Amino acid sequence: MHADLTQQSIRTDLAIEAREMLIGEVEREIPGVAVQSEDFTDFQVTRVQITTPEAEKRMGKKQGQYTTLEVPGLRQKNTELQEMVARQFTKELLSMVQLAEDSSVLVIGLGNWNVTPDALGPRVVKDLLVTRHILKLQPETLGEGFRAVSALAPGVLGITGVETGEIIQGLVEKTKPDLLIAIDALAARNLSRLHTTIQIADTGITPGSGVGNRRLAISEETIGIPVIAVGVPTVVDAVTIADDLTSHLLAAIMEQAGPQSPVFKVVQSIAESDKRTVMAEILNPYGGRLMVTPKEIDTLIEDMARLLAGGINAALHPAIGREESTKYLH
Amino acid sequence: MHADLTQQSIRTDLAIEAREMLIGEVEREIPGVAVQSEDFTDFQVTRVQITTPEAEKRMGKKQGQYTTLEVPGLRQKNTELQEMVARQFTKELLSMVQLAEDSSVLVIGLGNWNVTPDALGPRVVKDLLVTRHILKLQPETLGEGFRAVSALAPGVLGITGVETGEIIQGLVEKTKPDLLIAIDALAARNLSRLHTTIQIADTGITPGSGVGNRRLAISEETIGIPVIAVGVPTVVDAVTIADDLTSHLLAAIMEQAGPQSPVFKVVQSIAESDKRTVMAEILNPYGGRLMVTPKEIDTLIEDMARLLAGGINAALHPAIGREESTKYLH
Amino acid sequence: MHADLTQQSIRTDLAIEAREMLIGEVEREIPGVAVQSEDFTDFQVTRVQITTPEAEKRMGKKQGQYTTLEVPGLRQKNTELQEMVARQFTKELLSMVQLAEDSSVLVIGLGNWNVTPDALGPRVVKDLLVTRHILKLQPETLGEGFRAVSALAPGVLGITGVETGEIIQGLVEKTKPDLLIAIDALAARNLSRLHTTIQIADTGITPGSGVGNRRLAISEETIGIPVIAVGVPTVVDAVTIADDLTSHLLAAIMEQAGPQSPVFKVVQSIAESDKRTVMAEILNPYGGRLMVTPKEIDTLIEDMARLLAGGINAALHPAIGREESTKYLH
Amino acid sequence: MHADLTQQSIRTDLAIEAREMLIGEVEREIPGVAVQSEDFTDFQVTRVQITTPEAEKRMGKKQGQYTTLEVPGLRQKNTELQEMVARQFTKELLSMVQLAEDSSVLVIGLGNWNVTPDALGPRVVKDLLVTRHILKLQPETLGEGFRAVSALAPGVLGITGVETGEIIQGLVEKTKPDLLIAIDALAARNLSRLHTTIQIADTGITPGSGVGNRRLAISEETIGIPVIAVGVPTVVDAVTIADDLTSHLLAAIMEQAGPQSPVFKVVQSIAESDKRTVMAEILNPYGGRLMVTPKEIDTLIEDMARLLAGGINAALHPAIGREESTKYLH
Repeated sequence: MHADLTQQSIRTDLAIEAREMLIGEVEREIPGVAVQSEDFTDFQVTRVQITTPEAEKRMGKKQGQYTTLEVPGLRQKNTELQEMVARQFTKELLSMVQLAEDSSVLVIGLGNWNVTPDALGPRVVKDLLVTRHILKLQPETLGEGFRAVSALAPGVLGITGVETGEIIQGLVEKTKPDLLIAIDALAARNLSRLHTTIQIADTGITPGSGVGNRRLAISEETIGIPVIAVGVPTVVDAVTIADDLTSHLLAAIMEQAGPQSPVFKVVQSIAESDKRTVMAEILNPYGGRLMVTPKEIDTLIEDMARLLAGGINAALHPAIGREESTKYLH
Repeated sequence: MHADLTQQSIRTDLAIEAREMLIGEVEREIPGVAVQSEDFTDFQVTRVQITTPEAEKRMGKKQGQYTTLEVPGLRQKNTELQEMVARQFTKELLSMVQLAEDSSVLVIGLGNWNVTPDALGPRVVKDLLVTRHILKLQPETLGEGFRAVSALAPGVLGITGVETGEIIQGLVEKTKPDLLIAIDALAARNLSRLHTTIQIADTGITPGSGVGNRRLAISEETIGIPVIAVGVPTVVDAVTIADDLTSHLLAAIMEQAGPQSPVFKVVQSIAESDKRTVMAEILNPYGGRLMVTPKEIDTLIEDMARLLAGGINAALHPAIGREESTKYLH
Repeated sequence: MHADLTQQSIRTDLAIEAREMLIGEVEREIPGVAVQSEDFTDFQVTRVQITTPEAEKRMGKKQGQYTTLEVPGLRQKNTELQEMVARQFTKELLSMVQLAEDSSVLVIGLGNWNVTPDALGPRVVKDLLVTRHILKLQPETLGEGFRAVSALAPGVLGITGVETGEIIQGLVEKTKPDLLIAIDALAARNLSRLHTTIQIADTGITPGSGVGNRRLAISEETIGIPVIAVGVPTVVDAVTIADDLTSHLLAAIMEQAGPQSPVFKVVQSIAESDKRTVMAEILNPYGGRLMVTPKEIDTLIEDMARLLAGGINAALHPAIGREESTKYLH
Repeated sequence: MHADLTQQSIRTDLAIEAREMLIGEVEREIPGVAVQSEDFTDFQVTRVQITTPEAEKRMGKKQGQYTTLEVPGLRQKNTELQEMVARQFTKELLSMVQLAEDSSVLVIGLGNWNVTPDALGPRVVKDLLVTRHILKLQPETLGEGFRAVSALAPGVLGITGVETGEIIQGLVEKTKPDLLIAIDALAARNLSRLHTTIQIADTGITPGSGVGNRRLAISEETIGIPVIAVGVPTVVDAVTIADDLTSHLLAAIMEQAGPQSPVFKVVQSIAESDKRTVMAEILNPYGGRLMVTPKEIDTLIEDMARLLAGGINAALHPAIGREESTKYLH
């Protein structure tokens, strides 16, 4: 029974959190990881660059660029803030890709329509301005300033029986886009990041990450074209919270006892195995995967999907970028 | 303006209706079309075989086998009838395909989740028992009697920007199934067929048919494996109803006047152009495609999707066929 | 069988159409019906006042004010036009009611969530800014400029087993609002009005109207407070279209034949009964109520619901009226 | 900041869990609480009777009868088990109410359609066989063996602006049912109870309980007719899990150290305040209410709603009770 939990370690899909966890341990910057931050009135942009194989290994994240927008205000309904963030998201997205005027782009909404915290990708796809077929058949109806955009929300392995990566490979071979953008719901470590954080990465989606357990990497190596991954944390694993809680509690006890105290040693010696036993006792009875989510998750996902769709529409279609980004939804 | 209507002719996706229309004109059987009917207590099965290129042309339907289940009672909620029809549907489906014990099958749900009358295909896919990934990764969890089934509801051209046929080609090349089953919502000519009729055809889906306008044929010629099309009429085009109404009315007048009457000739001479003018006057102001549907369409589609999914599950997985067919939904 | 159709007459829930039909017959204005029109760049506002019992009877609409916004462009996605119309809708709504600063308002979304063309009312309610409980419990969190708004989407008789009017009576007795606004999906006669027309009436909702068949009037007489009805046509009854088609066709034939022609008399004499017979032949086989709707109805209803919710929010909450109307959705 | 958490105590809506917590403390039965269990092959039924004001106070649950069905297998799709449990649920429900042949029943689906874990009540209402209007208007269409059932899913305070209890009071005054059944999603303490436990209580719904925070009690005292509450736990509060985790961990440490050890005293002395501090540190950053739910919650709620609706249909309509219970679901 306990095996499940022992094998699961604390998990985050955010590079920014992977870095925080390492820095927490070593208390200084990590070699091979360059970080640059920019503060705006209502949000912060952090750009993390992983540049060496060693840093890749320590961080548990592939080499490449990870840009994160942190917007605590997004959990409240605020149309103006949403539009401001959508514009910055468009800028950051464009700074990571090389788009020619006639580049064609395929957007993949990963995840499962019918599982609310995993539905972000399909929801974004629903609001995209898809143009590939119009540019092929009746380009005159669109006017200038639109790139060929196609989109698919293929569903998850448990629903299709096919690895999502295979479906994408087939589609890319048939339609030959120049760029792939993959949208996914992520798992965070820290509850404050739920529905407030957007990560854009040029590394693709690493297998096993995401809210659903997808397995085949979707990256330039497997797909053959550049892959930009856009993700938003919608859940924290219950195991992560449990691990954090117990670790913090034990640390607090040891700190209060002091390093010379016999308590310190006793607690230290018994801690790890007890921790696992207790977590197993509390979480295992369910016998499945548990997530921590806010009660209002349905609305939060709907709002975030509109923001991302608006930002992607503006990034891919210059004609829209010149106008406000939420205008061409549907 | 009128051009739209003049170009549209009466349309049906049902072979059984195409035949009725021809027979109505010529009043005898059509050469190259073999028909065989079987009556059950609460429904009727009709098997139409189109065997010559001439018949194909006259019928406007590809050569092949079209099996139709007509079940007037399906519009009322009746669980027992649904199960009975699901079992017969399973039998008819199995009689049209050659399945080895280890055959693998891909089921495609054509149509658009977000447009109720076009959502039949995606709804069926949602209720299928998909097994391909389990048989690959953990076959022991399933036991005997399950074939490798995969499924996709790709959406429509306007949502993906890609011809559905291309998406399927890519997927079939990657996953190499032995058989394709495509589910689609159809347009009928006759209102009595709405949500009461199931057509199974071994000819694939002809381009331009269905509720949405799909264009690339999905058939053995384009996909490379046998294609079974399963369809249910969910709408009648408003133009079809209008055409039927006006034709019947003119015929009624002429019949009443009698062939010797001057009225007969006058009405006959002026009918066709007036008919077009009047239909244009009434229907064109909307400026888009109009459909006639029952008010309770949402429920009817949900029920039919469960019936089809149950029947397909039983057909593809012998272990289910032995039990009752609706048991393994989800 | 034919009885159904003979009893059904052409039906419209729009006063503007009832008037057009009468004027079509008599070719001059109707006594007791005052009409005033105002043209805007992209839409037209028509204000019909029914002032005498005779006019009420002839029009088949209760005495009172009916304001109609006709916006042909609404069927295309156009955010700017939607906002412009929402603002005008707010103005027209406010001109029909007497709201004190502390008036409280109950909004009722009539219709059925699960039947797309009937879901307009519940969809509007979902997007309203509801404040009654906040003003009662924590008024300080809202600030100035908000009235007490409550809302309910009770569902339809077939789902609740209770007349919607009774549910509203109970709620009004308990919560004592000063004004009731009832939102409903309507049936139009003319296809061009589908999803492009908004009617605001100070007469309440007449029993038997609407897409669903509701029976107890929701009006000041039955509820005890002023009732404003807001409606948008989402369907045309198939019978209405059929009737229009056949009438126009017969008129066209007679016109072409000329009044002296024997054809004229023959067609005239046989027309009415034949018309009924033919319509019954074509429409009765379905055996239920049929509607004509555009294929993209799901999206059209979603857009219209947002427009109406935005306009009502701005009308009821002065703090929002000063800002743009779609900002406080959710 | 910490105040939030200090004020929240461990919370459960299940009498069976309230009892377990007390017994855990005192290690013997609680005076004024009678318990009786019955084991079936795949599930267990426990009947808890709270009979004294003292027991009411200690349990935090009103005096009355609480019957609980615990069915661990419900989390797997298993149609046969679902039907078996639905039948037992029908029996238990009937044993708690006094229904005459002509009793009329109002079923209220508490909770919010648009928030998945809170949507159980509205989903059940959707699948009920509602008959009150038919028995009033066309009783002959139903035949023998149907009671007058009405139903409403009013939504939650944040959506309506009105206390749900007030809406129900108004409706009960208008329609005078003999019995009220209220369905709600509950919060449990123990994860193993999620989606596997059904509680039936004759005490009504206590204010403040449920997944959403409703405030006015819905009970015989406030409504005037007997109220049966049917609930299923769909979430565990994150605070509950956190509290359980930390308590168990500290207990484990103390046990291992032994009561004579200095560690025991130190840990005991510092535990409570540290626990609160740590929980606040981990959970407060989100700043809202967090819930622990299984990933597949959407499907679990859909299945449970069908089970409950089937069971209630069979309990209220003798004609259905004689057949299988899921047969009359729409």
